[in-house]
Amino acid sequence: MVSLSNLTPEAHRLLSTQTIELASWAFGNAGTRFKVYSTPGTPRDPYEKIADAAQVNAFTGITPRVSLHIPWDEVDDYGKLAQFARDNGVVLGNINSNVFQDDDYKFGSLTNSDPAIRAKAIDAHKHCIDIMGATGSDTLKIWLGDGTNYPGQDSISGRQDRLADSLAQIYAYLADDQQLLLEYKFFEPAFYHTDVPDWGTALLQVLSLGERATVCLDTGHHAPGTNVEFIVVQLLRAGRLGAFDFNSRFYADDDLMVGAADPFQLFRILNEIVSLDALDTEKSGVNFMLDQCHQLEDKIPGEIRSALNVQEATAKALLVDRDALARAQADHDVLGANTVLMDAYSTDVRPLLRELREEKGLDPDPYGAFLRSGYLEKVAAERVGGQQAGWGA
Amino acid sequence: MVSLSNLTPEAHRLLSTQTIELASWAFGNAGTRFKVYSTPGTPRDPYEKIADAAQVNAFTGITPRVSLHIPWDEVDDYGKLAQFARDNGVVLGNINSNVFQDDDYKFGSLTNSDPAIRAKAIDAHKHCIDIMGATGSDTLKIWLGDGTNYPGQDSISGRQDRLADSLAQIYAYLADDQQLLLEYKFFEPAFYHTDVPDWGTALLQVLSLGERATVCLDTGHHAPGTNVEFIVVQLLRAGRLGAFDFNSRFYADDDLMVGAADPFQLFRILNEIVSLDALDTEKSGVNFMLDQCHQLEDKIPGEIRSALNVQEATAKALLVDRDALARAQADHDVLGANTVLMDAYSTDVRPLLRELREEKGLDPDPYGAFLRSGYLEKVAAERVGGQQAGWGA
Amino acid sequence: MVSLSNLTPEAHRLLSTQTIELASWAFGNAGTRFKVYSTPGTPRDPYEKIADAAQVNAFTGITPRVSLHIPWDEVDDYGKLAQFARDNGVVLGNINSNVFQDDDYKFGSLTNSDPAIRAKAIDAHKHCIDIMGATGSDTLKIWLGDGTNYPGQDSISGRQDRLADSLAQIYAYLADDQQLLLEYKFFEPAFYHTDVPDWGTALLQVLSLGERATVCLDTGHHAPGTNVEFIVVQLLRAGRLGAFDFNSRFYADDDLMVGAADPFQLFRILNEIVSLDALDTEKSGVNFMLDQCHQLEDKIPGEIRSALNVQEATAKALLVDRDALARAQADHDVLGANTVLMDAYSTDVRPLLRELREEKGLDPDPYGAFLRSGYLEKVAAERVGGQQAGWGA
Amino acid sequence: MVSLSNLTPEAHRLLSTQTIELASWAFGNAGTRFKVYSTPGTPRDPYEKIADAAQVNAFTGITPRVSLHIPWDEVDDYGKLAQFARDNGVVLGNINSNVFQDDDYKFGSLTNSDPAIRAKAIDAHKHCIDIMGATGSDTLKIWLGDGTNYPGQDSISGRQDRLADSLAQIYAYLADDQQLLLEYKFFEPAFYHTDVPDWGTALLQVLSLGERATVCLDTGHHAPGTNVEFIVVQLLRAGRLGAFDFNSRFYADDDLMVGAADPFQLFRILNEIVSLDALDTEKSGVNFMLDQCHQLEDKIPGEIRSALNVQEATAKALLVDRDALARAQADHDVLGANTVLMDAYSTDVRPLLRELREEKGLDPDPYGAFLRSGYLEKVAAERVGGQQAGWGA
Repeated sequence: MVSLSNLTPEAHRLLSTQTIELASWAFGNAGTRFKVYSTPGTPRDPYEKIADAAQVNAFTGITPRVSLHIPWDEVDDYGKLAQFARDNGVVLGNINSNVFQDDDYKFGSLTNSDPAIRAKAIDAHKHCIDIMGATGSDTLKIWLGDGTNYPGQDSISGRQDRLADSLAQIYAYLADDQQLLLEYKFFEPAFYHTDVPDWGTALLQVLSLGERATVCLDTGHHAPGTNVEFIVVQLLRAGRLGAFDFNSRFYADDDLMVGAADPFQLFRILNEIVSLDALDTEKSGVNFMLDQCHQLEDKIPGEIRSALNVQEATAKALLVDRDALARAQADHDVLGANTVLMDAYSTDVRPLLRELREEKGLDPDPYGAFLRSGYLEKVAAERVGGQQAGWGA
Repeated sequence: MVSLSNLTPEAHRLLSTQTIELASWAFGNAGTRFKVYSTPGTPRDPYEKIADAAQVNAFTGITPRVSLHIPWDEVDDYGKLAQFARDNGVVLGNINSNVFQDDDYKFGSLTNSDPAIRAKAIDAHKHCIDIMGATGSDTLKIWLGDGTNYPGQDSISGRQDRLADSLAQIYAYLADDQQLLLEYKFFEPAFYHTDVPDWGTALLQVLSLGERATVCLDTGHHAPGTNVEFIVVQLLRAGRLGAFDFNSRFYADDDLMVGAADPFQLFRILNEIVSLDALDTEKSGVNFMLDQCHQLEDKIPGEIRSALNVQEATAKALLVDRDALARAQADHDVLGANTVLMDAYSTDVRPLLRELREEKGLDPDPYGAFLRSGYLEKVAAERVGGQQAGWGA
Repeated sequence: MVSLSNLTPEAHRLLSTQTIELASWAFGNAGTRFKVYSTPGTPRDPYEKIADAAQVNAFTGITPRVSLHIPWDEVDDYGKLAQFARDNGVVLGNINSNVFQDDDYKFGSLTNSDPAIRAKAIDAHKHCIDIMGATGSDTLKIWLGDGTNYPGQDSISGRQDRLADSLAQIYAYLADDQQLLLEYKFFEPAFYHTDVPDWGTALLQVLSLGERATVCLDTGHHAPGTNVEFIVVQLLRAGRLGAFDFNSRFYADDDLMVGAADPFQLFRILNEIVSLDALDTEKSGVNFMLDQCHQLEDKIPGEIRSALNVQEATAKALLVDRDALARAQADHDVLGANTVLMDAYSTDVRPLLRELREEKGLDPDPYGAFLRSGYLEKVAAERVGGQQAGWGA
Repeated sequence: MVSLSNLTPEAHRLLSTQTIELASWAFGNAGTRFKVYSTPGTPRDPYEKIADAAQVNAFTGITPRVSLHIPWDEVDDYGKLAQFARDNGVVLGNINSNVFQDDDYKFGSLTNSDPAIRAKAIDAHKHCIDIMGATGSDTLKIWLGDGTNYPGQDSISGRQDRLADSLAQIYAYLADDQQLLLEYKFFEPAFYHTDVPDWGTALLQVLSLGERATVCLDTGHHAPGTNVEFIVVQLLRAGRLGAFDFNSRFYADDDLMVGAADPFQLFRILNEIVSLDALDTEKSGVNFMLDQCHQLEDKIPGEIRSALNVQEATAKALLVDRDALARAQADHDVLGANTVLMDAYSTDVRPLLRELREEKGLDPDPYGAFLRSGYLEKVAAERVGGQQAGWGA
């Protein structure tokens, strides 16, 4: 049975200091075009979302930041919200723009051929940057729903040009210590072409912006069969892997809990991160985030489970015998190299992680401890009335 | 240039009598989980939906039936609604059940392990059958959102058993001249397993029900790369192809206009229909329906375009030189056989269809004629206030 | 750390008596259309293949049967071959027909419209049945490469009819204690339509044959995203899951070692097998087989690794707390149910399996023990000259 | 019925001067790992391949160049081969390297961690460049089979570094008027990771080489659902679309005749080419090539059909009413814009192309004329004995 003593001191340090950013919207209701189910106790405002996110951090000890989504998380006083977060043991993280829910954006936001709508979308991003100033966030994350549904509907090339111009205007508005993350997605909501569908497109766009622009890799945003860890390697080689949006999927952008659909893929991704020395965010600049939809399951325990899944995959990646792996690879020993990797994957790292938590004064079983805490029952009783937060589609 | 004279008398008859059923919900707003856009003039009740559907029929002459969706199209007096339809030149078609939007169905409807919820879902279908009595519809169409999001969430096998039992109860409630259509779908809204995900499952279920149960094939409900026309052939061989839900997709269940994403696939499907003598609904029992979401485009012209796309594919299929094709096939002349098929597909059948419409006293250009009719402007002006119809997610 | 004592007596028995059938052709060379690489020591005849397969059994203790492929494994005296197998501690298993490598089958074998070629293909199967008599095998396994590459090339429906007729002739030739397995495959070598592409088609065909015809599920033969364990459940419900061909894939029919691409999927499949009480081949009639191509890795250790992967997934499935799972499912506790399943999956069962092997007098580390045995070096030195076995494409 | 008079003079010129390069290997035998079928008359050496390719040009008038594959097309005297080509009315085109069929390349060629093997692979490319000097070809096309089959088998990142270094050495060896084309492919023959799997990777590699390095887009080398025309636009925007390898597929890299699986996709690709003014190879530098496997169909007529399919798609793209399309796009008239595009696609351009051929003194029906020419019968009679050319896997 492995224990912390199986880790090198550096691996121990990396695991001990690993952090995962949570998304505020994961605590609101989410669903499909067919139905959005609600749950008692669902937050009704950004404060309640942050309170819930803080619970995940309180029990796991590894989720100290919360991303906001604007305008979903719009408040009058961002300083007060930031203070509320700190009072709850977390800080505000990235600011995520939303230019896919206003009627004006029906035919595009940053890519729209209508100058007025494009200006409005650019302004929405400048507003996000202003909020970053107020919250102390250093990163603007952009995911666009832009695209078309039918061949011929618009000029793919013209839209790409307008996108470049819009991003340049947004980038220019950033302060020197702020950065821009551009996320790509294979399809949905657009069904014929998407303006930023793949890592190649996102990379070309951020390369043309400047050094403080990087790519966000959402694990669910790829074509069937795509080797995601290969893209991780490519973006790291290019120095432009800015962040992960972790989740999992069996089909399309299912937004299930990370590690739920293919835990081996999650391990392979973390293995590349560890092998390329990118786990330490301070050094690598790679931010690890969750971006999921808890449609059927309770949200807070769903986030706890997801954070634990990332942590378990990380621990396994840190257990890979790198020297033995390198030797087998050099020998072209296909089975031997695969065996080294699988040895780590097959290891049950939960005892090791229980130790790590006890070392930090946490309950060794965050998931169980949270369920036993009575928090879910408490908020279900308290949060009555009002409008539950959701995607607002 | 081909003309009606290129058709055999039987082909001419088949093309002239072809009908396509419309879905009432296609005239309401539709969208994705990210956003549902609205359009001025969108119907606010079943009457307005039928009025719009009747426009499609008035201009194309081939869409004389309108499917209802219950409870979206619930009205007090179905006899009155049926009369309204007739007054507008159409009749009411299938009744579609909806057991995916009530909170009770969060964990399943006909497959739910909770007997009370399952009974409620069965009752909802009996209610639909009662409505069929009132509207004169002879077909109950069932599409279920049932499934699970996570491995282990429920027993796949137990759910299949409960599904079989529920369907048997519903089937038993049908009158002798009524039938049941069971639709399958690869995924969505469920993201791990879907209870009726493929034609094999749907077929097993309907085979165990009895002779008046058949399968509905929605062209967008398949895994990537699936050969849909092969399934058409299989269901026809089994005598259980009850209906099509036509639409198209590039990715998942995009619900774009039929023929918009892959017109050659639509032609191949119609080619199998024609070659297996299943175009005549009276003889084959195959009902041809549209099931689409007009998210960005205007709904009525979107339906007109779709109906025309089916009609054009049908005309091409009727132009295939069956004798030459059979000869080339018998000779194992791969290129020759493919050439015979492609000759028909490459033909521009629009002149021929203009002739056909003139023969029927219709405008040869239904799409243009409708746009020129002023109807869209009229309803946009009239239908102010109220709640636009939509999926109600 | 789990040990055998964590298993119920029945689970212990099931794990202890589990068997996996090997394919003779896995020990020959395999590759892609681009290149087939060879390895020193590759068998040159069926005897050497069986000798190699026997090594896998000698070290794992769970692979006591070897499938033959006719004509690849054609010998003069099958009684002698069977005796050779027994002398090496294994027995001959299924007979696999091959009607995809003769020039005559270019346009189909059992589906060919040419009566002479179809008769030849039927005769090839009768020959396999004759061999079964000589080897004592009770199962004829049929996988067909039949299909077309271009729309129009042949009649999909006509081919299905001819397939049914051909299979009926073959089935009629079986002795009463012999059975027929029909395997389906999504695509390849045919690239437009395949005559038995999915479980629905295979099931319809075997249902029309009789009770001794069942379906073989090759885990790599599905469309992207297909939920394979769902199909396992469906075929078990229908009483027609005859066998698995285990392997894994990231893309198409990659034929990698089972468990190498998605070990969680393998676990989910075994979990359904265990939960539906189908692990005991004697009772369920389900035969578990490997069907892989070892292109780059050594074949014998590749087979050992694969057998161990199946065994590990089985052990995990046997550790699932079925009562807790059923309770969580009944409570619609999505996360709780998933957690029960994942608890078993996250468990490192290798210590338990080492115990099991020691109980049987085997080396606890079959993979390492085989490598240390010197067998690979021995056969590389001995098997010089002659023609290495391969697919013979 | 459209005629040449429907084209603008510039469109007429573009269509009239369009050329498509043929691949020598398309005239040899090809197949799958299961079977390679042969045909009477299949070429046995590069001269016979060129003779066959010249037939395609003689009848279509649009395929004046033939790509070679080294070492498949290795000859003693390339000057003589080039003269033979000219005598047959064609010229030699690109030189394609082959570093996927030597046993040494089992674990990689340009990416191999063994310096000796990597040097050998680099030398193989230098040899190709030497041949280019002898044949007068200006382009080296590189497609690599490099990749791994199992997670852990090798370092993805290390291989990428070695690839960059190898390509730089090859690029440095080019003369100033020679260029390098790098082709990407989603998967196969590697089944876990491929070293150049997507356009992003290929683009990053060629960008780091220099201005005379561009990307080759093979239409069959993408993940399911990929929007290929989007990639066309992206590579054109980046100034790095060097060439197309045209073919089509329903599933993986099926290598069927271009336009056979999805003629609408082919049209959409050509539509982007035309709309971005990249049809004129002289100006755009984009080379249009066929890369197909004629497994079941006769090769020469298969190539003729493919060339005609590209030509028809081009003619349709040239018929798109660009002004009307731009207007509809500017108006966000989704249906209107799509209708403009579909009007061109629905047009039967075969009469127009017959005119074009007559204008050039060609038979208006190249496919039929070739079949009637007796060439197939002649070579079947003459080419007896010897070894038919093939992929040599």
